[in-house]
Amino acid sequence: MHVVVNAAMSADGKLSSRRREQIAISGDADFDRVDRLRADSDAVVVGVGTVLADDPHLTVKDENLRDERRTNGKPANPARVVVDSSARTPSSAEVLDDAATTYVCVSDAAPVEQRAALAEHADLITAGEERVDLLRAFAALQEQGIERVMVEGGGELIFSLFEAGLVDDLSVFVGPKVIGGRDAPTLADGDGFVENFPELELGEVERLDGGVLLTWRVAD
Amino acid sequence: MHVVVNAAMSADGKLSSRRREQIAISGDADFDRVDRLRADSDAVVVGVGTVLADDPHLTVKDENLRDERRTNGKPANPARVVVDSSARTPSSAEVLDDAATTYVCVSDAAPVEQRAALAEHADLITAGEERVDLLRAFAALQEQGIERVMVEGGGELIFSLFEAGLVDDLSVFVGPKVIGGRDAPTLADGDGFVENFPELELGEVERLDGGVLLTWRVAD
Repeated sequence: MHVVVNAAMSADGKLSSRRREQIAISGDADFDRVDRLRADSDAVVVGVGTVLADDPHLTVKDENLRDERRTNGKPANPARVVVDSSARTPSSAEVLDDAATTYVCVSDAAPVEQRAALAEHADLITAGEERVDLLRAFAALQEQGIERVMVEGGGELIFSLFEAGLVDDLSVFVGPKVIGGRDAPTLADGDGFVENFPELELGEVERLDGGVLLTWRVAD
Repeated sequence: MHVVVNAAMSADGKLSSRRREQIAISGDADFDRVDRLRADSDAVVVGVGTVLADDPHLTVKDENLRDERRTNGKPANPARVVVDSSARTPSSAEVLDDAATTYVCVSDAAPVEQRAALAEHADLITAGEERVDLLRAFAALQEQGIERVMVEGGGELIFSLFEAGLVDDLSVFVGPKVIGGRDAPTLADGDGFVENFPELELGEVERLDGGVLLTWRVAD
C-alpha cells in the first residue's frame, strides 16, 4: 500500500481559519493536480472533521479522468474513506451518495444506532477501541484491493497517520496567504511529536498558483 | 522602515513542539544566512515568549560580519528589541547583556517595579495600554535611527505585526521534519485572521539544508 497525504496550507501552515471555514489557498492549477491525483488513487481518505466542516464529495471532477478510469476497468471514482471513531458522519453527507463506494472506519465505541444508520450508505470497517486503529483499518482497506491511497486531511487525521507510520509521501501546496491563529487547524495537529520527529526528504519543488508545491518523501 | 520576518518552520508550519523546546529545523547554511541577515539589520526583534523559551543572544555570530559592520561605522551588533507588554523579561536574559543596545517595548500596564529593573539594562519604549502598540513602538524605534528591522519570532509577535500591517517581507525556511500538535507554536499564532487575509507574492525559492527557503513579499 502506498499512502500520499495531499494538502494546501497557507504560508504559515494553516489549513483554514480558526472558524474552520474553507479558504481558497490554491488555484486552478493545483485543483487540476489534485483531481489527477484523485483519479490515480484507489481511495481518497478524510477525517470526519473534514466531512463535518466542508462536506466534500471527494469525486473526480474532470470527466475525461473519469472516462480514463473506466477505460482502465476501474469505477469512475476512487473509493471514499472516512475515518470516524464515533460514527458522527451525517447520513446526508456528500461522501455517502452513490457516486462511489464509501468506507467509514469506526471504533468499537461508536454508538450502535449511528453505525446502523451509516451501514445503509457505506461499508463499515470497525477497528480500535475508542479511536480508529489506523493500521488495522488500512489493512482492511488493503484486503479490499486498495493499494494507492490519497489522504486529503484534516490535520488531526494527518498527524495520526504520521504517528502510525503510515505516510509514504507528503504533497503540500504552500499558498500566498497568511491565516494565523493559535487555534486554526494546521497540516498536522493532534498531540504532536516531542521527540523522534518524522524526517522528510525533499523531492520536487514547483511554483504553482502564486505559491509552491513541495513534495516530501517520508524517510525510512 | 523595512521589516522582514524571518523564521524556520517544520513542513507542517510549526516553530517548535508543544513543549516549546527549541528543535533543529534548519542547518548550517540557513544559520549562515540568518547571521548575514542580522548583520544587515539595524535591529533584531523578538517577542518576550521567545526570550522566555529560548533565551537567545541575538548577536551576529560571525566575527567577519561584525568587523564589516564596524568598518561601516556601525556597532558590532544590531540593536536588540524585545516586545514585552508586561515587562516579563528576566534581568538575567542574554538579550540584556552589553553586547548590543537593547530596547524593551512595554505597555502602560507593565508593573513599575519590573520596568525599573529592566531600565537598568535596556532602553524602555512605552506604547499601548494593555498590550504594546506596535505602530507606536516601531515609530519610536525609527526615531532612534532604526530603518532595517529583522523579526525572529515568535508566532504571537509575527501575527501581531501582520495585523498591524508592519511586515514587508517574510522569509521562511521550511524544514524536512513533521512536528505536529494542535498546541504547538506556529509561524503566525494570535487570534488569527478570519477575513482580509494578508496576501503574499512569492519571490525566491531556494533549496537549502534539505528544505526550502521561501521569500514572500507582502502585497500592498
